Amino acid sequence: MTGVPAALRTAVDAAKERVAALHAELPRWELVVWTAGNVSERVPNPDGEDLLVIKPSGVAYEDITAEAMVVCDLAGNLVEGDRSPSSDTAAHAYVYANMPDVGGVVHTHSTYATAWAARGEEIPCVLTMMADEFGGPVPVGPFAVIGDDSIGHGIVETLRESRSPAVLMRNHGPFTIGKDGRSAVKAAVMCEEVARTVHIARQLGQPLPIEQSHIDSLYDRYQNVYGQH
Amino acid sequence: MTGVPAALRTAVDAAKERVAALHAELPRWELVVWTAGNVSERVPNPDGEDLLVIKPSGVAYEDITAEAMVVCDLAGNLVEGDRSPSSDTAAHAYVYANMPDVGGVVHTHSTYATAWAARGEEIPCVLTMMADEFGGPVPVGPFAVIGDDSIGHGIVETLRESRSPAVLMRNHGPFTIGKDGRSAVKAAVMCEEVARTVHIARQLGQPLPIEQSHIDSLYDRYQNVYGQH
Amino acid sequence: MTGVPAALRTAVDAAKERVAALHAELPRWELVVWTAGNVSERVPNPDGEDLLVIKPSGVAYEDITAEAMVVCDLAGNLVEGDRSPSSDTAAHAYVYANMPDVGGVVHTHSTYATAWAARGEEIPCVLTMMADEFGGPVPVGPFAVIGDDSIGHGIVETLRESRSPAVLMRNHGPFTIGKDGRSAVKAAVMCEEVARTVHIARQLGQPLPIEQSHIDSLYDRYQNVYGQH
Amino acid sequence: MTGVPAALRTAVDAAKERVAALHAELPRWELVVWTAGNVSERVPNPDGEDLLVIKPSGVAYEDITAEAMVVCDLAGNLVEGDRSPSSDTAAHAYVYANMPDVGGVVHTHSTYATAWAARGEEIPCVLTMMADEFGGPVPVGPFAVIGDDSIGHGIVETLRESRSPAVLMRNHGPFTIGKDGRSAVKAAVMCEEVARTVHIARQLGQPLPIEQSHIDSLYDRYQNVYGQH
Repeated sequence: MTGVPAALRTAVDAAKERVAALHAELPRWELVVWTAGNVSERVPNPDGEDLLVIKPSGVAYEDITAEAMVVCDLAGNLVEGDRSPSSDTAAHAYVYANMPDVGGVVHTHSTYATAWAARGEEIPCVLTMMADEFGGPVPVGPFAVIGDDSIGHGIVETLRESRSPAVLMRNHGPFTIGKDGRSAVKAAVMCEEVARTVHIARQLGQPLPIEQSHIDSLYDRYQNVYGQH
Repeated sequence: MTGVPAALRTAVDAAKERVAALHAELPRWELVVWTAGNVSERVPNPDGEDLLVIKPSGVAYEDITAEAMVVCDLAGNLVEGDRSPSSDTAAHAYVYANMPDVGGVVHTHSTYATAWAARGEEIPCVLTMMADEFGGPVPVGPFAVIGDDSIGHGIVETLRESRSPAVLMRNHGPFTIGKDGRSAVKAAVMCEEVARTVHIARQLGQPLPIEQSHIDSLYDRYQNVYGQH
Repeated sequence: MTGVPAALRTAVDAAKERVAALHAELPRWELVVWTAGNVSERVPNPDGEDLLVIKPSGVAYEDITAEAMVVCDLAGNLVEGDRSPSSDTAAHAYVYANMPDVGGVVHTHSTYATAWAARGEEIPCVLTMMADEFGGPVPVGPFAVIGDDSIGHGIVETLRESRSPAVLMRNHGPFTIGKDGRSAVKAAVMCEEVARTVHIARQLGQPLPIEQSHIDSLYDRYQNVYGQH
Repeated sequence: MTGVPAALRTAVDAAKERVAALHAELPRWELVVWTAGNVSERVPNPDGEDLLVIKPSGVAYEDITAEAMVVCDLAGNLVEGDRSPSSDTAAHAYVYANMPDVGGVVHTHSTYATAWAARGEEIPCVLTMMADEFGGPVPVGPFAVIGDDSIGHGIVETLRESRSPAVLMRNHGPFTIGKDGRSAVKAAVMCEEVARTVHIARQLGQPLPIEQSHIDSLYDRYQNVYGQH
């Protein structure tokens, strides 16, 4: 381990606090069971390579503290921490390395989003709240096994062609991005909410489509005028 | 901002307390995620135009306080408050301006009610508790985009032709009304409950209909004799 | 009001404590929303007519106290209490008056049980826990409107022909009985549990039947040998 | 009762603490209602026969304490405790007697797993988290009534032919095993999670299969490299 540069100490510690606190949102909104799921944040480094802060592997949600968070570089190597980083760290790191505007990443196996992912089926944009938040369907990424860059690559390639901050990785589950950790957590919460609502709508028939022009105007207003992001 | 008239100070402050407290019912009954959903109350003004009290935009449920609530006139303009009113304020204001007996309005994206709304399908009255509370089916309102009077207009036109205090706005979600904020919250809770129960009944077949004369007598008894409203 | 006989004072007060405490089990197990649902207990009177203790009408679950409980006779008339008894009191009273072994009654609109009731379809006995607790299917009672003896009559006629302590009243919801209030609450919890599990099993196909001889031996062991009732 | 050998006193008391604490995980993850469900742990005896620690019968979850836990031998006979052991003790004991590597056993009637069990249908391995944890489908065990060795026998015969730590006993519910009580509880939580997610995926179509070679590599990495078990 090379350690955290002194100039980033304050920023890293603040990110650890935020990332630890944001993990509490995942069980609160019932997006995770046991130790599954993880939130990370980028720590920008004006004088060198950026770092990321993420949850260590296999920690129970009630045992998460700011001190327990680990720091990695954008190749996924451990820079600071007593425990191994989450086994999903390579995917988070790849996203930060390849999407410079992304400041936060979240991964869960939230039930309804994962069910769409298991069928490899995108979630159609049939709710006004979905037009607001996602600007269209939630897309599906490729099947990829853990152990190399293929999960990160699949996330980045899919999200680059979409307005959605969420991607459903096939047979796996959702990854979401945002300008910071909180935005990525919000996207994870909203992704499960629309996955569930559209699933339930589909159980008894077909949801009515929303015209593309309405989707566009809702998305534009929510993202640019309303200023919720 | 013109400010709250001195004669309404006490009434406005009491409404802020009630509206803030009623917001806690929305996550309690699992009708909302993140910052979605809002409750408002009318403040009658014997000497001029009525006001309304509503949640500001984008506030987390755990941060809601009476002081944070905002006051608007019935054209939706901000009268008092440090933050922007909920982006749904225009719809609430339109309802108060056009339905003088309404004292409270609630809007959520509660899951099952929104699923019926996504299909544009009314909830049939096949439960005695639904006859009690809604006096018939829960109707569907038109598709309307945010930004002008069309949501409020759709709510009012639909509810005027129904005994139901709830309307499912197409592809959007439920709006409910009541004589005060608490009654509108109760209608929101019951709307999701009947949306869920009838959905589940329909998953394995067709619910048995209830005769119109029984619906009428149940509704009459509950509203007039039993005195729960 | 004739008042509670002095000889029953202690027994009535103890029943009020138990009935108030048992109401907390209904929201805990998610069987009720808002003020719906009620638990009652019989107070035997060796020297005259039995009484019953029940929740008053329209009280929020967080406001339930032993003092707030009301006492009625088995014709449903108020004997003691500051508030009106639950509007379901006549049905509870009819059960006590006609089923001398019943010491507790519970009524809810729990979601899955009510969904079976809306279709007028009994829950088939396809789980070992259902054989244990119900000894066969959970039966459906007739459609009945509130206001006379017809609900109570329907409950009693249906349960007399069944080993089940639960009946699904058509388009309405479940009523359960037990030797005391706690047993009736347990039956309400288990009724919703089996209603939900068998519903979910049925969504993707047909549950495998259990032979009648196995149902009989499971029921006999659980009720008589194991001693859980 | 022969009593706990003095040499096992410390180990038995530590196991009682762990088993009591692990029971709190069952309602936390919504795997049980009322008093259903049980966790046990093996207490190895280097100088004789092993013992097991399990919950007594019919105890409410809020009343579970370390002191209330009971000790049995691997024939299911009570060795120490004031109350009767869980009526599922014979099944737990049979597993310990016939699977020497098993240190913990859990039994629940968790809703979705029990629904698959009611249809007698294995859960197909269509999620990467399922490949990680179960290494393939979750298998179905035979129908067996309580009262002899047939439940234990069915569990052991089914699990011996599978990599899965969970078996769905037909018309009954899941049993899970692990190297200790905590691992068996984790398997029970994950079993319900995959039962629910695959159920929901199947409601709207067919999940995409995962190639056997990918299942094998995910399982190998998770169990051996990642070190979460």
